[in-house]
Amino acid sequence: MPMCSGAMKIILINPNSDPAMTARIQETAERFAQGRFEVLCRTIPDAPRFIETYGDIHRAGPGMAAMIRELEQDFDGFVVACHYDPHLDTLKEITAKPVAGIGEASLRIATMLGHRFSLITTDEHSLPLQEDLIRKYHLTESTASILAPTGPLLNLPEEERCLALARQAIEQDGAEVIILGCAGLSGLENKIRAELGVPAIDGVACALFIVEGLVRYGIGTSKARRYNPNRDSE
Amino acid sequence: MPMCSGAMKIILINPNSDPAMTARIQETAERFAQGRFEVLCRTIPDAPRFIETYGDIHRAGPGMAAMIRELEQDFDGFVVACHYDPHLDTLKEITAKPVAGIGEASLRIATMLGHRFSLITTDEHSLPLQEDLIRKYHLTESTASILAPTGPLLNLPEEERCLALARQAIEQDGAEVIILGCAGLSGLENKIRAELGVPAIDGVACALFIVEGLVRYGIGTSKARRYNPNRDSE
Amino acid sequence: MPMCSGAMKIILINPNSDPAMTARIQETAERFAQGRFEVLCRTIPDAPRFIETYGDIHRAGPGMAAMIRELEQDFDGFVVACHYDPHLDTLKEITAKPVAGIGEASLRIATMLGHRFSLITTDEHSLPLQEDLIRKYHLTESTASILAPTGPLLNLPEEERCLALARQAIEQDGAEVIILGCAGLSGLENKIRAELGVPAIDGVACALFIVEGLVRYGIGTSKARRYNPNRDSE
Amino acid sequence: MPMCSGAMKIILINPNSDPAMTARIQETAERFAQGRFEVLCRTIPDAPRFIETYGDIHRAGPGMAAMIRELEQDFDGFVVACHYDPHLDTLKEITAKPVAGIGEASLRIATMLGHRFSLITTDEHSLPLQEDLIRKYHLTESTASILAPTGPLLNLPEEERCLALARQAIEQDGAEVIILGCAGLSGLENKIRAELGVPAIDGVACALFIVEGLVRYGIGTSKARRYNPNRDSE
Amino acid sequence: MPMCSGAMKIILINPNSDPAMTARIQETAERFAQGRFEVLCRTIPDAPRFIETYGDIHRAGPGMAAMIRELEQDFDGFVVACHYDPHLDTLKEITAKPVAGIGEASLRIATMLGHRFSLITTDEHSLPLQEDLIRKYHLTESTASILAPTGPLLNLPEEERCLALARQAIEQDGAEVIILGCAGLSGLENKIRAELGVPAIDGVACALFIVEGLVRYGIGTSKARRYNPNRDSE
Amino acid sequence: MPMCSGAMKIILINPNSDPAMTARIQETAERFAQGRFEVLCRTIPDAPRFIETYGDIHRAGPGMAAMIRELEQDFDGFVVACHYDPHLDTLKEITAKPVAGIGEASLRIATMLGHRFSLITTDEHSLPLQEDLIRKYHLTESTASILAPTGPLLNLPEEERCLALARQAIEQDGAEVIILGCAGLSGLENKIRAELGVPAIDGVACALFIVEGLVRYGIGTSKARRYNPNRDSE
Repeated sequence: MPMCSGAMKIILINPNSDPAMTARIQETAERFAQGRFEVLCRTIPDAPRFIETYGDIHRAGPGMAAMIRELEQDFDGFVVACHYDPHLDTLKEITAKPVAGIGEASLRIATMLGHRFSLITTDEHSLPLQEDLIRKYHLTESTASILAPTGPLLNLPEEERCLALARQAIEQDGAEVIILGCAGLSGLENKIRAELGVPAIDGVACALFIVEGLVRYGIGTSKARRYNPNRDSE
Repeated sequence: MPMCSGAMKIILINPNSDPAMTARIQETAERFAQGRFEVLCRTIPDAPRFIETYGDIHRAGPGMAAMIRELEQDFDGFVVACHYDPHLDTLKEITAKPVAGIGEASLRIATMLGHRFSLITTDEHSLPLQEDLIRKYHLTESTASILAPTGPLLNLPEEERCLALARQAIEQDGAEVIILGCAGLSGLENKIRAELGVPAIDGVACALFIVEGLVRYGIGTSKARRYNPNRDSE
Repeated sequence: MPMCSGAMKIILINPNSDPAMTARIQETAERFAQGRFEVLCRTIPDAPRFIETYGDIHRAGPGMAAMIRELEQDFDGFVVACHYDPHLDTLKEITAKPVAGIGEASLRIATMLGHRFSLITTDEHSLPLQEDLIRKYHLTESTASILAPTGPLLNLPEEERCLALARQAIEQDGAEVIILGCAGLSGLENKIRAELGVPAIDGVACALFIVEGLVRYGIGTSKARRYNPNRDSE
Repeated sequence: MPMCSGAMKIILINPNSDPAMTARIQETAERFAQGRFEVLCRTIPDAPRFIETYGDIHRAGPGMAAMIRELEQDFDGFVVACHYDPHLDTLKEITAKPVAGIGEASLRIATMLGHRFSLITTDEHSLPLQEDLIRKYHLTESTASILAPTGPLLNLPEEERCLALARQAIEQDGAEVIILGCAGLSGLENKIRAELGVPAIDGVACALFIVEGLVRYGIGTSKARRYNPNRDSE
Repeated sequence: MPMCSGAMKIILINPNSDPAMTARIQETAERFAQGRFEVLCRTIPDAPRFIETYGDIHRAGPGMAAMIRELEQDFDGFVVACHYDPHLDTLKEITAKPVAGIGEASLRIATMLGHRFSLITTDEHSLPLQEDLIRKYHLTESTASILAPTGPLLNLPEEERCLALARQAIEQDGAEVIILGCAGLSGLENKIRAELGVPAIDGVACALFIVEGLVRYGIGTSKARRYNPNRDSE
Repeated sequence: MPMCSGAMKIILINPNSDPAMTARIQETAERFAQGRFEVLCRTIPDAPRFIETYGDIHRAGPGMAAMIRELEQDFDGFVVACHYDPHLDTLKEITAKPVAGIGEASLRIATMLGHRFSLITTDEHSLPLQEDLIRKYHLTESTASILAPTGPLLNLPEEERCLALARQAIEQDGAEVIILGCAGLSGLENKIRAELGVPAIDGVACALFIVEGLVRYGIGTSKARRYNPNRDSE
């Protein structure tokens, strides 16, 4: 794929250390960027294998802050490539350039595509954290359900598991849009769209087009107060 | 500006009949598109001069539906270029292609850029309607204030009026992001950014990059139920 | 039924074109009015057969506005006789006389009669629209459920279908009040009351007694701002 | 005023012992009833002079319950004629006939007449109680403000005080409808309408036309659960 | 158990007249107090056997107010030992010393121990009242479910019934904390903790340690306005 | 005061490195504990001087987790002694013993003492973070205002500054309870109580009596899901 010289550059920060997931995100990102901008997915050194607990999020923190400080000058925009949007507030404070989490991006875009969305996750453990995230973004009333595989579904391959959950969301919970609630599921949205006929989205693409748009629009995080790294008292 | 052959085409529907506003929107849109996609702003025949009352919205309805039906095949995405998002639900029902209102687009993007936003409008009359719109999108708790010029401000030129309102929003209401609440103000965001140092956004650019992103992502409005033009009973 | 001379006159606007439904509403209205006021149910010319989609609502709009403009002088109060309350804001803007939708009327009265209500509709398609309507009136937390017939229920006659849904609402969802969510169901409330022993209400009666009360009280829609047909800038 | 034989009879229970207020309510009620139904305002024996504190409400309780038990057979509907709606849940439990509080009635009707209402009270002490009442009825988001006279306003006669507060509500808080938040202000609504040109309502009329409507519609409080005086375990 | 001289003294007011429940509460309270403070549970004379309906609450009112007035000087803090928190606002108005309801205490403490709580009650009748109570304390979004025994569960002994409900709350509703919604269940929390491995709490202990803390901290109910027994106009 | 052997031990973790603040917290804590339990306030090594920005919170994270892991066996309960409750979710995941933040503790206790509270902070920068914290705990509707010193107030000594803000909260915003929104203000609550006559609270005492109570009640954080450090998939 030809790369324009002087192109916009966006980095995706994967806070876990799973090389397969990083590769998957990179692939999704390139497919979406189509050469309009350069895109790079990087892994945090010493990160946990997966981000599932508060402890996992905690451990990824120092590396994420170090990475964005190191790369801030070289990139035009930043994406946190984990659906929990870990440390997103801290990253928005560090740089004034556009930063988006794949959680917030997919949740906000989903609300524009249908009445209510359902979020498909990989593990029951994440249900309360996802619920809190949705509430943080004031989207509780736009949620049909948050679903994780249980019982016999756990024996199915990932793709079938997601399809089964998405079907349940649509038929029983009234979901009109499906959100893949984990960067590791990236790519399955096409399967869901084809099989079930509803919009299914992954946060990687959503975050990329929002950051791309913000970069072109010349705008980033407000430093008025909440995300200002300098204390008023200084 | 060079136009790529086979490019994506997005239409902006301006529900009023003010030629100056249509020209202004077209200019903003082209500046944002930068040739990545074709963009066209069209006016509704027999529309009111401005959209301010429920009656104005009402009168623009038949023309808007007729326009999207007529142009549905020729365009890849649709933007309703009035901040009230008039008839947006109806348009999302008519086509399965991406449709965004400049109201919903700017409101959702604003929440990603700072703690709370203020919306600057042109007329006190619009305050309750804008408040209702914000509530429709579940964003009441992200709003610092909704402001319209009153008293001596009414004698100022539009640009100074908007600057004064934006300054008030930041200093008195804690706004961290400014939204221009009328397509006719399009372009003033740069002035506010430069003078006041906070992100200021206009819905035209926001709606364009969201629709552009959705087109590239191959996704549009869910037809699961709410926006399905066919009744279940048929 | 004897009609008092000089009596109050209330019109019910049925935005669809189904003559059977118009007759049914007229009958319900006369039974409630008992000669205290004159009541007339009128159909919109060129309206869709039923109001189920945003397109149906859209198509009924011009005729509804035309009718209220034409009859504004001759009537004391107005009722929109479709549970979606289509174009209610526009009608409240056109006249300063009392206007009520059967949706808003039945929803508000229901909250005074029990802990939570359930809304019985005729078609799954309407669920998201009814949910939005309830949220528009800030009554989400007073709702036990919104139910439409599915599966085997679809084969039952309308009365049995409604009874089955109402029973489900009471026994499974904790509903204490039943609202008939469609003017076409008008009259079935007596059957539900008799069979299930809970208050069941139809919006036609509720809207009539609220409009009757407002007329006697000499009060109508505020023209302070939201429903003022004149822009401030004029 | 001629009284129809066999007419509907509605009682207004004034939980305080102020004879002037009882007379005022009786007058307002008769003016609204216009002979369509009989109306009687009664005072609770041993009630506090005014209802302002939780202690006042508490003291009125036994007498209110005794009165409704005594008169339940002889009346068709009941109104609690104090804006705090004291003991309303208890009264709805005691009888299955229609009961309305002037608080709930005026608040719900106000939402149908304009964008937001302001509530005018007589005393700062009542502000938190009125705020709680509004929240109980899920109407916080429909409230522009709750106002009590302070400072120099306290020296004005009641009518001017209310006018001043109503003017402030409209001009500064965006109120489109004014609610008189005390039965003792009954009658001032006409002055406010005439002077300020917005709908102003008193709960006595609103509660009367709702109860009148419910009686004619043959419906009262649900005994499904919340207002059932019999325990399930009995 | 040795009692320190000059110790803090807390009274628990049981608004019902069931001697077994009073004894049970006294036992729980002493076990928690462990001699750090004196504790006494008293029954209201002429109270209903159990508090389940609005009428029951109503009948307990005069005795509760009389008791707190009589004992106000002799005790340092007060607990309303019924999960509905009957007349709590009135009692907070009567004294400036610390007062807590077992409902509010257990609900607030539960939110600190896990994601969402479920409330276990004894009777379906109480479901709407408990729901209202939770909403009064702004805790609706922290609630997983409110459960009462139905069907075959009604035949089980109380302990097994509660265990079954708690298990259902955890497994089906996502509850992470169990609240015993009736003072009469006091003591069963240990069984639930042991069997199901989640925190289970009873309001008696929670209210006691909050009141104990407030007494030591030298603080009670604000008399700024809401709970001030004196009217501003006096 | 003699220290009982085998006493309960509670640690307060001060996430900043200001020795004066640590000493102040220790003093407040001992004054409250009165020998009923041992209490120790510790500072995080390499912590920022004050916790004001997301970056400050971020930097304190590793040290806080290390400290609680190191001391988990030796203490019975834990308090996070910074009003932002930094990393509270992570700490609740690490240990099953009781953990409270001074933010959540003071906010929840305040709701039991009056109608609405105001939070007094030290710096305008913290306003959005405090607002977010309050919303996290579902207490937005219980908040009268969040105030920080500005303009001439900045020149006053800390005590007078707080008094001035508290007075403003009570007189202008209707606050009935004052919360000191920073551990560094600990001790000023007595001054506010004495001067202004309303309850004023500091989170240190509130968190201590809640943790003390939970330890005595034998209960801590639920490990059902949200705060379980082990993933379901393991």
